[in-house]
Amino acid sequence: MQDETQNKLLHRLNRIEGQVRGIRQMVQNDEYCIDILNQSSATRSAISSFEDELLKNHLSEHVADQIKRGDTEQVTDEILHVFKNAKK
Amino acid sequence: MQDETQNKLLHRLNRIEGQVRGIRQMVQNDEYCIDILNQSSATRSAISSFEDELLKNHLSEHVADQIKRGDTEQVTDEILHVFKNAKK
Amino acid sequence: MQDETQNKLLHRLNRIEGQVRGIRQMVQNDEYCIDILNQSSATRSAISSFEDELLKNHLSEHVADQIKRGDTEQVTDEILHVFKNAKK
Amino acid sequence: MQDETQNKLLHRLNRIEGQVRGIRQMVQNDEYCIDILNQSSATRSAISSFEDELLKNHLSEHVADQIKRGDTEQVTDEILHVFKNAKK
Repeated sequence: MQDETQNKLLHRLNRIEGQVRGIRQMVQNDEYCIDILNQSSATRSAISSFEDELLKNHLSEHVADQIKRGDTEQVTDEILHVFKNAKK
Repeated sequence: MQDETQNKLLHRLNRIEGQVRGIRQMVQNDEYCIDILNQSSATRSAISSFEDELLKNHLSEHVADQIKRGDTEQVTDEILHVFKNAKK
Repeated sequence: MQDETQNKLLHRLNRIEGQVRGIRQMVQNDEYCIDILNQSSATRSAISSFEDELLKNHLSEHVADQIKRGDTEQVTDEILHVFKNAKK
Repeated sequence: MQDETQNKLLHRLNRIEGQVRGIRQMVQNDEYCIDILNQSSATRSAISSFEDELLKNHLSEHVADQIKRGDTEQVTDEILHVFKNAKK
């Protein structure tokens, strides 16, 4: 992974960790459930965007090489697996 | 697309069309909302499985060729786009 | 269900059925997989909006009555079930 | 919120925070993208289960009271909003 990509991904994860701690604070303060649910779904979206970024990097850095080396079947299986997980 | 794959996909679509007509019948009969919602979410799952099948075919039939021809960037963009749509 | 709501829901289902037939036509014409996937994910979104409409009607027409009659536990279970299905 | 529910929710959040830190460690170690994506999607599932638990508590503790007090429209709007967010 290139340094720039890695830093961008780590930055996203730091923010996500902060969001999770924010949700914990809301639960400790017994805040209104619907407000907590909104924060929680924003955090899920942030993880989902992290995954988009990571997959983008994977596709552009590795997949082309894998296919040129002839690992087509492995690539296909992995992407399908990621695709199914994405919808969970 | 190979004939066998095409037939399998068409078979899935026929079933999905039948499921949509089944939901329409339930709405016309004014059946219980929760039962209709269950049918509807089963239909969404069926469409989602159709997409898995189609993507699997796409990856194994086309993507390797595209990358060998050097269309790496287009492949990456298309798969990312499909990935984001999958999560909607 | 009120007539107006029922008609709106049936109208949505007719459109969805048309979309599914459109996808079948695309598969029969052996169109580009990514274009078919886009149509398919638009159809899933349309089903999802149909569910929002139906749930909205269910909540405003039935849930209040059910709770006033004391069926709180059934209502809770049903809504949770719908919520889990929504994420599939 | 009852103490038992609150503790259960805080316990889930602690685990989720640990999972996010685990993903950060994987990115720092430059581990294989697909493995990171799998961890990330497991974390999204854990957040999603946290939301199910929280919504279950909300429905059984508050919604019945709100409806008995006559806040039916607010309840309907909030649940629909949560439902739409769940699918994001």
